[in-house]
Amino acid sequence: MTTPPPVEYKDASPQVRAVYDDIKASRNVPDVNNFWKYLARDPATLKRTWESVKQIMAPGALDPLTKEMIYLAVSVTNGCAYCIASHTAAARKAGMSEAMFGEVMAVTGMANETNRLANGYRVPIDPAFET
Amino acid sequence: MTTPPPVEYKDASPQVRAVYDDIKASRNVPDVNNFWKYLARDPATLKRTWESVKQIMAPGALDPLTKEMIYLAVSVTNGCAYCIASHTAAARKAGMSEAMFGEVMAVTGMANETNRLANGYRVPIDPAFET
Amino acid sequence: MTTPPPVEYKDASPQVRAVYDDIKASRNVPDVNNFWKYLARDPATLKRTWESVKQIMAPGALDPLTKEMIYLAVSVTNGCAYCIASHTAAARKAGMSEAMFGEVMAVTGMANETNRLANGYRVPIDPAFET
Amino acid sequence: MTTPPPVEYKDASPQVRAVYDDIKASRNVPDVNNFWKYLARDPATLKRTWESVKQIMAPGALDPLTKEMIYLAVSVTNGCAYCIASHTAAARKAGMSEAMFGEVMAVTGMANETNRLANGYRVPIDPAFET
Amino acid sequence: MTTPPPVEYKDASPQVRAVYDDIKASRNVPDVNNFWKYLARDPATLKRTWESVKQIMAPGALDPLTKEMIYLAVSVTNGCAYCIASHTAAARKAGMSEAMFGEVMAVTGMANETNRLANGYRVPIDPAFET
Amino acid sequence: MTTPPPVEYKDASPQVRAVYDDIKASRNVPDVNNFWKYLARDPATLKRTWESVKQIMAPGALDPLTKEMIYLAVSVTNGCAYCIASHTAAARKAGMSEAMFGEVMAVTGMANETNRLANGYRVPIDPAFET
Repeated sequence: MTTPPPVEYKDASPQVRAVYDDIKASRNVPDVNNFWKYLARDPATLKRTWESVKQIMAPGALDPLTKEMIYLAVSVTNGCAYCIASHTAAARKAGMSEAMFGEVMAVTGMANETNRLANGYRVPIDPAFET
Repeated sequence: MTTPPPVEYKDASPQVRAVYDDIKASRNVPDVNNFWKYLARDPATLKRTWESVKQIMAPGALDPLTKEMIYLAVSVTNGCAYCIASHTAAARKAGMSEAMFGEVMAVTGMANETNRLANGYRVPIDPAFET
Repeated sequence: MTTPPPVEYKDASPQVRAVYDDIKASRNVPDVNNFWKYLARDPATLKRTWESVKQIMAPGALDPLTKEMIYLAVSVTNGCAYCIASHTAAARKAGMSEAMFGEVMAVTGMANETNRLANGYRVPIDPAFET
Repeated sequence: MTTPPPVEYKDASPQVRAVYDDIKASRNVPDVNNFWKYLARDPATLKRTWESVKQIMAPGALDPLTKEMIYLAVSVTNGCAYCIASHTAAARKAGMSEAMFGEVMAVTGMANETNRLANGYRVPIDPAFET
Repeated sequence: MTTPPPVEYKDASPQVRAVYDDIKASRNVPDVNNFWKYLARDPATLKRTWESVKQIMAPGALDPLTKEMIYLAVSVTNGCAYCIASHTAAARKAGMSEAMFGEVMAVTGMANETNRLANGYRVPIDPAFET
Repeated sequence: MTTPPPVEYKDASPQVRAVYDDIKASRNVPDVNNFWKYLARDPATLKRTWESVKQIMAPGALDPLTKEMIYLAVSVTNGCAYCIASHTAAARKAGMSEAMFGEVMAVTGMANETNRLANGYRVPIDPAFET
């Protein structure tokens, strides 16, 4: 059995097309990214994932740029090459400057370092942080 | 051999006290957190880590609150209990509201999910993300 | 010093050939995968790893397909590209359908998300789970 | 500012109560776990997470026990103490025997080991796995 | 169903006792650690894990202290509290001084930081590293 | 906006050149690796990272080879392809033999396995490890 190919718009079912149409309209883009074309192998996952992403990444108490930078920091921590590429692009589109990018990387790197120092030195939680 | 205890100010060497004094002055706090008292077992690591944290977390292209929320998202991704507690407290002190906290968690959770979907579906990077 | 090349059967020592022969017989395949050819740089690791894998992946309380899907879910979580490719192939060979693949991915993604929500909200373990 | 407490049913808003009621009915339990009581600090996240979990963990191409064991394997890989405790309990309730538990652990441990061997030996993907 | 308790020597089967006896003799200790008592719930995993650990941690091209420090660095990276505690103790017993401990932590922290900087800046591998 | 290219020596600012010169002199190499050329997009991160790496990797209580092997073990655990390639090369240059490499991989693999077994069996820390 070979792996099913990613689903292009012209080959998509009406259910998948409806999700693609919503992504394209919401993001004002002419086509969806590979991520969605691969997820479309499982239409239920495609639909659920898009609806969750759409809800979570909408402007709220945090602006879209801040959300994209947090997404990028997590993706860098996990080492997901696709996600680093796509969310770097998305963060830039949302306004991340080169200087902001440098600071996201610096904070992400530092957090990964101090997370391990706290683990290794077995630091107990300060009572002040418990409330 | 027993583990050396954390270093309290009254027992600290002049080199360690100088770092503690700078932390207390920079953050306007009466005492340093456990993290620093445990790192002080190795004064070189204490000094280097504090100087890096101080430089990285200073206001720059990103404001301190945004930096603290990124720090928190990374710590949650790595599952570092101490770091989650301390950076939740720090982010709140910097102005993170309950609604912002909820959104940081939502984005962090979603990124961890989609990072794995991208891995598992083996999604190739879109050419548009390569530049 | 250059990296030693992977070990092909024709160039292998008798000790390495014995492991390759057992892999080929156990799995009914004409040649071993790259994983084993690279591990063969260290014959002790090759032998120990194969014997452990053979024991663990044999039918037991769980059937081989279930074991392969668990292996895949872990590999996706860790982002190991080689392991995702090889265990997707192995799971399919053991009977994983496209629908099953989609559900393994969905569960793996969801678990990675809720693991972080549990971390970030610092949820204490329910007493009912302690026994 | 102190952390908001987990939300008990008697103190919950109608929106949160509706989710709790659905969890209790779907799982036939008298009360929801701490996970949901903590997520309820953010009703949108509570609702979205429950709906996704409910959809993903329903019987499909995979039975609920297999899904719970995959969830457990991911949680063990990530080291999420809460999730390990809750999904061990859930898997048992779904029928995981002690022997099955032992095999889930063995496969999870082995996958984590061979994932790193594949990383460290820098094993290239076999052409046969690419299709 | 309640979780089976850890297996004490007096309650152990002959198969489990044989492993415990070998651990006690190899390490010259009066009793085995909790790790082994919990693994003993699955005698096959107990035996296989001990035999692998015994083989891998024996003196070879690397001395036992170096191996224990590598074990500790990995455990700190993964945030496994039990493993950090037990391998810190083991490394000390093998001769790790307080200064060595500080350097293991510093290298581990730094590696975790630069791993993420390499991810985030998407650094391509230098041709010189490919051979 | 396109991604800024890596910074070659001939195009570097005096501040970046000073770091490159120090790397080349300290390591006795004719050019710096890609890692530094990419970090140079953010001169402050370049300088801080190099100074930390230089301080941490200098001979101390541990020799440089031991430090490089620990660095490699962490990079393998995190699955950072660039870091695995560069620190394998660095460890070899510092004297890591093929047999030593095999043992670093074996210990790293085993630690990743037993870390998960300790997580999954929920092993409590032995009182003897607490001091």
